[in-house]
Amino acid sequence: MRKLKIAVLGGDGFCGWPTALHLSEAGHDVHIVDNLSRRWIDAELGVQSLTPMDSIQERCRIWKQETGQTLHFHLLDLANEYERLRQWLGDEKPDAIIHFAEQRAAPYSMKSDRHKVYTVNNNVNATHNLLTAIVETVVDAHLVHLGTMEVYGYSSVGAPIPEGYLNVEIDTPSGKKGQEILYPTRPGSVYHMTKSLDQILFQFYAQNDGLKITDLHQGIVWGTHTDQTRRHPQLINRFDYDGDYGTVLNRFLIQAAIDYPLTVHGTGGQTRAFIHLQDSVRCIALALSDPPAAGDRVKIFNQMTETHRVRDLAELVAQLTGARVAYLPNPRKEAADNDLFVKNDQFLALGLNPTTLGDGLLDEVVEVARKFAHRIDRSRVPAVSAWTKDIAKRVETDPERKRFKTVS
Amino acid sequence: MRKLKIAVLGGDGFCGWPTALHLSEAGHDVHIVDNLSRRWIDAELGVQSLTPMDSIQERCRIWKQETGQTLHFHLLDLANEYERLRQWLGDEKPDAIIHFAEQRAAPYSMKSDRHKVYTVNNNVNATHNLLTAIVETVVDAHLVHLGTMEVYGYSSVGAPIPEGYLNVEIDTPSGKKGQEILYPTRPGSVYHMTKSLDQILFQFYAQNDGLKITDLHQGIVWGTHTDQTRRHPQLINRFDYDGDYGTVLNRFLIQAAIDYPLTVHGTGGQTRAFIHLQDSVRCIALALSDPPAAGDRVKIFNQMTETHRVRDLAELVAQLTGARVAYLPNPRKEAADNDLFVKNDQFLALGLNPTTLGDGLLDEVVEVARKFAHRIDRSRVPAVSAWTKDIAKRVETDPERKRFKTVS
Repeated sequence: MRKLKIAVLGGDGFCGWPTALHLSEAGHDVHIVDNLSRRWIDAELGVQSLTPMDSIQERCRIWKQETGQTLHFHLLDLANEYERLRQWLGDEKPDAIIHFAEQRAAPYSMKSDRHKVYTVNNNVNATHNLLTAIVETVVDAHLVHLGTMEVYGYSSVGAPIPEGYLNVEIDTPSGKKGQEILYPTRPGSVYHMTKSLDQILFQFYAQNDGLKITDLHQGIVWGTHTDQTRRHPQLINRFDYDGDYGTVLNRFLIQAAIDYPLTVHGTGGQTRAFIHLQDSVRCIALALSDPPAAGDRVKIFNQMTETHRVRDLAELVAQLTGARVAYLPNPRKEAADNDLFVKNDQFLALGLNPTTLGDGLLDEVVEVARKFAHRIDRSRVPAVSAWTKDIAKRVETDPERKRFKTVS
Repeated sequence: MRKLKIAVLGGDGFCGWPTALHLSEAGHDVHIVDNLSRRWIDAELGVQSLTPMDSIQERCRIWKQETGQTLHFHLLDLANEYERLRQWLGDEKPDAIIHFAEQRAAPYSMKSDRHKVYTVNNNVNATHNLLTAIVETVVDAHLVHLGTMEVYGYSSVGAPIPEGYLNVEIDTPSGKKGQEILYPTRPGSVYHMTKSLDQILFQFYAQNDGLKITDLHQGIVWGTHTDQTRRHPQLINRFDYDGDYGTVLNRFLIQAAIDYPLTVHGTGGQTRAFIHLQDSVRCIALALSDPPAAGDRVKIFNQMTETHRVRDLAELVAQLTGARVAYLPNPRKEAADNDLFVKNDQFLALGLNPTTLGDGLLDEVVEVARKFAHRIDRSRVPAVSAWTKDIAKRVETDPERKRFKTVS
């Protein structure tokens, strides 16, 4: 393997940190770029990672001590410091850039008008500033972006969701003609919408400037450890349990660990795509190994390994742990039920050997959660961010919700 | 007709000003909201409107003097003053909002990295701030947005471009199924890309919040006068002749008026959609008269009346005026030739009676240009903004271009 200089933008975050460690252990020269906004959002919300997380500088020091590898850290705000970003890129000239540097929670993006404005402004400008800076500095880097499966909005007609592109037939005056199009998106939150906007940005910069771009449409990540984060207590990954940043399966496991009911929204009929954190970092390494050529269309992977209905997950965790399931009104605006079929042939072809829910790692998450259960503020566990003012009213006045608040 | 309170965002601009006058004359209560950025860009580029244009306050004073109607003016920056925008919307509660407030020149958007960053930041945040503010203030307003035909990028398979939505057939395990999707976009400049992003924003806010949105995919506007701008010399519309903001047909007419060769890019084989300014303001009034209901999908109109190949337009203007045509290297990255078929059934059904190139109005534009020819800086006529660094080099060193520079 060729040793690459890799920039991990958002490398202090939940996916970014274990990715940085994975690539550093693989022998690459890793540069973490982050504005540490996620730590500021913790402060804003008055919540914290369930796991005690050291400063990024301290984490990098421990990594060096344990492995001898240097992780470089650069404090830089992609969305608001374009000139510094361009200067940095031109100076460092990375071979690859992995872009995690976006506000990534749908409930946070829907909390208030201020949060919507922040999410769009931050995410769109971060991605676009990066693209422009790559063009301007003529850096020959492969850009790998973390997108989301949820740009598609689950409105499929029963066809498997392909990897980015769709062949359609269009009526023309001379009969039906085939055409390849970007799979049409119908995002369900302001956050997901920004990933749909990113997709258009990537299409343009690949077409106009020949940038080499891979967009990973990732499912919901679960798990907390990777081979690298297990190496030292201070390398532990962040682990979110609150109603804004905690994601569904991890939240169930944490709820089970603290003897809190598993909170299912609506009937739990939503089907979602999942991937274990360990596979997520492996997929990124695989994507790095197979860049598109300059002039190619954007390469799009569905980065997920299995799909599950939310209520089935809740029942599974309940069985495993003895927790009870609570069905609460859904604060989101979404279909009560949906099917989901997803293609992920490309990563399988590159050699991904999926870690699934059956592999015993659910227990590990519960153990981590139990270990740090004393750090949990139970009042921050429910999801309270509603998609519209009407839904907020309905949720607040729902009798089941009120009853739940008293008993939990 | 019911008298509406109408906010015209970007009402000091080339399309915004005549629209404000048209709606004021029709009896509506018109509020112009503008940050006057276009005047700052004039200052930045060191160019000016061919027509002498008074301050917005003075123009409003003249309109009052001529018609007795008040045009309210509010200096407000949509992209950067979210809190003021929300306050203003909540206070004024307009019945309709017409959104022109975006940087609208493709060459300007491609001038440099700074211009790309500005265009994306300004346009996306202006549109998104507006949408969020409408949701937050619960103002029941019909939002009419000026988009562009050019989001589609002319990559059609020979099928007429429909009005926003496309019925496609998708292969599913149970056979082919029909599905309606947003017509896939492939914008050809950073500016056009922002309109493609807007489309996704509109889809989300119509779906999640029931906003009533009409998106007008407008062709290239030509002409300079409307019935209202003709009423007084100080009501005259702005009229751009420079290589960044001047649009193709108007530029040919101005070039003819000052005895400058008509500058065609490449072979001039590009086919474009056109609409006269008078029809543009009429279309906006028609769109206002027929809003979607809350909960409807975004209503999308193709706002154009005819298509022409660029070199045919040049030949037409050459015949009319005796000007000569100069074929110069194309600074844009685009197909040398394209066909274009566009549906505009919806506006025709609402009663639009198109003004076409055959209606004698080309002469009027040439007359206006001759009258103010002394205000033209000939060195600012060529388009110099190149789509990539490679194209910039090719254009600069092109022998025909060099020869042209000496003779023009």
